[in-house]
Formats: sequence, C-alpha cells, structure tokens
Amino acid sequence: MMKTKTAAHAVRLDAREGRLSGPTANLAPGFVQANLAILPRAIAYDFLLFCQRNPKPCPLIAVSEIGDPLLASLGADVDIRTDIPRYRVWERGELKDEPSDVAAIWRDDLVSFLIGCSFSFEEALLAARLPVRHIEEGRNVPMYRTTIETTPAGRFAGPLVVSMRPMKPADAIRAVEITSRLSAVHGAPVHVGDPAAIGISDLGKPDYGDAVTVHPGEIPVFWACGVTPQAAVARIRPDFCITHAPGHMLVTDILNASLG
Amino acid sequence: MMKTKTAAHAVRLDAREGRLSGPTANLAPGFVQANLAILPRAIAYDFLLFCQRNPKPCPLIAVSEIGDPLLASLGADVDIRTDIPRYRVWERGELKDEPSDVAAIWRDDLVSFLIGCSFSFEEALLAARLPVRHIEEGRNVPMYRTTIETTPAGRFAGPLVVSMRPMKPADAIRAVEITSRLSAVHGAPVHVGDPAAIGISDLGKPDYGDAVTVHPGEIPVFWACGVTPQAAVARIRPDFCITHAPGHMLVTDILNASLG
Repeated sequence: MMKTKTAAHAVRLDAREGRLSGPTANLAPGFVQANLAILPRAIAYDFLLFCQRNPKPCPLIAVSEIGDPLLASLGADVDIRTDIPRYRVWERGELKDEPSDVAAIWRDDLVSFLIGCSFSFEEALLAARLPVRHIEEGRNVPMYRTTIETTPAGRFAGPLVVSMRPMKPADAIRAVEITSRLSAVHGAPVHVGDPAAIGISDLGKPDYGDAVTVHPGEIPVFWACGVTPQAAVARIRPDFCITHAPGHMLVTDILNASLG
Repeated sequence: MMKTKTAAHAVRLDAREGRLSGPTANLAPGFVQANLAILPRAIAYDFLLFCQRNPKPCPLIAVSEIGDPLLASLGADVDIRTDIPRYRVWERGELKDEPSDVAAIWRDDLVSFLIGCSFSFEEALLAARLPVRHIEEGRNVPMYRTTIETTPAGRFAGPLVVSMRPMKPADAIRAVEITSRLSAVHGAPVHVGDPAAIGISDLGKPDYGDAVTVHPGEIPVFWACGVTPQAAVARIRPDFCITHAPGHMLVTDILNASLG
C-alpha cells in the first residue's frame, strides 16, 4: 500500500479498499469534497459547455482526460473508478446499480467531471459561527426546483435547483460576504427572501432533502445547488452514465482554505 | 438600422457598417471588451477544456453554439462575423488575411470563444487612482513569456504569458485586492517582484508589446494575459482559425461593474 499523505487520501484509500461504503460528510475536515458525473465522450463537450455557462450550480473542480480514470490535479493517486465509497450507474435514465467501485465497467470513452459541493462553504459558514440549520437538526439540506432556468448548452437544459439555509438578516449578509469569495463551490446566494419569487410554493416541502425549521425573524437564503447538473443529465437520459451516490463524494487533497 | 441601445452597441454597429476599423481601447468606457478565438468544432472541446483548466489566462466570457455567429448573451444583436473592427485569419499557423469582416468565410463548424481582457481590470485600477504605466506613457502593455507552464488539455499547452504593471508595494497590495474580485478578467496577479523567478531575464525586452518605465521603489506586478491562449492555438497550427487583430476587441453590453 502506498503511503497515506493526507486525511483525504486516507478516506480515498478506505473507499478503494472496501473499508468505507457510507457517506463522506464530516470526513477529512478542511478538504474539498466533490460531486461526480462520468459521461461518454459524445456528450462531454455539451456538458462542459453547460458547466461553463452555469458556473454557480456547476462549479467545475476538474475534468479528466478522455478514458483516463486518474485525476492527478485532485490529489495523490486519485482513481475515480475506486475512490468514491458508492456510485450510481445509469442507463437511459434508469438506475441500474449502486456499486462500491466501477472498475469492471470502465470504458475508454468516459470523461469524469468533478463539481464543487456545499460542504466547503458550509465549513466556512460554521467557522464564522453562522447557523447551518440542517446540520444543527441532523438532516439533509432542503433543496428546491425553481422557475429560474439554467442557460442551455447543446442537449443540456432545465431548472436551477437551489439549497436553502435560514438565517437572520445580518447573518445572511455575512453569509453573502463569505460565500461570494467561494466561487469554486457555488459562490454567493442566488436569492434571499420570498420563496414564491423563484417559484417555490412551500418551504416545508422540498423537492430533495429534508425540511428544516425557519425561526421567527429569519429569512431563507438560497444557493445554487449541485443537484442542478445531475437533474440536467437525468433529463436527457444518456445511454450510460455514472454518478456518486448522494452524500458519497470524492474527498480531494485540495484545501477548502485554498478556494477563497 | 436597428435602434442603438448602448455605447457598446454603437461601437459594434460602427464596426459592422465599416465606420470603424481601428482599435477599441477607450471606446465605450465601462463595457467589457473581449478577446476572440474562432476554432473548428474538431478542436473546440480541447480548447474549452484548456480554458477550464487555465482560468486566469483564459477567463471565458462566452462560447457560441456550433456554427452560430450570434452571441445573445453578450449583447443586443451581436454578430461575431461583423462586429469586430478587424480580424486575423489563420491557416496552418500562417496569417492569411486581416479583413474587417469574416461573413464570406464563415463555416457551419466554427465555434467562437470570447475571453476576458485586461481593459476591464485596468479601468478598476484607474478608478482606484492606481498607476497603469503603459497608459500613462501611451504604449502597449509589456507582455512576457514565462517559465510557468499552463495545464495542458488535449493538444493545447504552452507557457503562461503575463502582462506587467509596475507599482509601489502599497499600490501593488491594493491592486491585488481589487483584481482578486475580477476573476472574469484574469483575476489576481500571478507574481510580484523578481522577474527572474518566473523566467523573465530583462523587463526592458518584453516578448509582446512595449517596455515601460519602472520607477525607483516600484516592483513589477504580473497578471496572467490573454495572449496565453492565442499562443497555445498558434503552437498547434490548426487548419483554420480566426482571431481578433490585436487591440481590436469585441465590445460587449456587459458592464465592467457587473464583474466584481
């Protein structure tokens, strides 16, 4: 076994060697975790362009070479076929399998897209003593489809999906300041206040994740969410694609502190 | 003729209708100007990935649809075939023509890449009363090839090219603060101080542009430069490509003030 260099590397080796098959939240604090979409070359250009045109929901951390499972820019020895604890394999939009590695089904035409995730900016919010309600309440973050359309690219299109964290107005302002510097992980919020203005009819009924408590005097603060590109991929039902299982991210050697 | 909506739009119509064939510096102050590279579809994916991997020298403002000369995201009625005052047409790395429009040679496989330019951040520096020496001296900005390598993507690779503006240390610090918020137009500097540390042997002999005066007590401040992607394209001598002629930019309807 190669020498473990960082806590992030240790998590990846645990995933690779079968000691970890669960979610990665709170593992290797301080390191950037990333969403994964592995797509065939035939639709990779359109997806890359979709990410370029929609940087808030789709902040690209890295893109692999075609067919190459290694991603040296993300850390020592990163092998995208094995280093995530659990994957989802899709064919024509149908979930086919949830394996703990995808080495056996790897293909020479596959391109891996790693996309920033909100774990990084939540760490920055918590460090500033701002409330992150779903963490306080031990739930998944509430996410909502909005009436804001992404900018299409080729076959990729669809609504912007947002995550929501309720805060007092002064905290919301501080959260804008903090996350505006973190463009690699969704950046500043896209909306604050009235949910109906972006097509959300009931904060208590998120489209993904769990509802959280909104206390009196708090306003909802909405950030672009990495579910947006996943939903855009699902819409076109590609012949074949691989994603991470929700919450089971790639833990990279990049420091959250390096993003600002 | 359609109604002119902005000063930027007026510049584009002047270029389109043959009233403007010169450089665009100082025209339509406040509006983002962009570098242009028009490439065949066959190499567009690699170039898009090169820009994704090298955002400081290659900050993409927009990418067209394949074969579509219109770029609605950049402003009213933008037609990339006509709205730049002067183009350069290249075949296998050789300069073939410098026309004032490229409508007659347009092809259905062409993709336009618009890349942010330093005019925008220089406006922000001047607004903060920081010195921009080449503007004071009426020269082109000095640019240098460095020993810093870009991150390759497919066939695209090559050295980082930087532009240099000398400043007193306190001004250099302020310039870092200001430009670090302008990631759409090269962002924070890549180096400050000793030129030799990045492979520049003589500040008085730039590889592109003109030398400028460095006063006693000033240090050179280096920013990633949009010549980098041009040089990367030139290296691979594509069968066909079109760029803007130096200094003859696309003037967009995007406000510089919206970039921060």
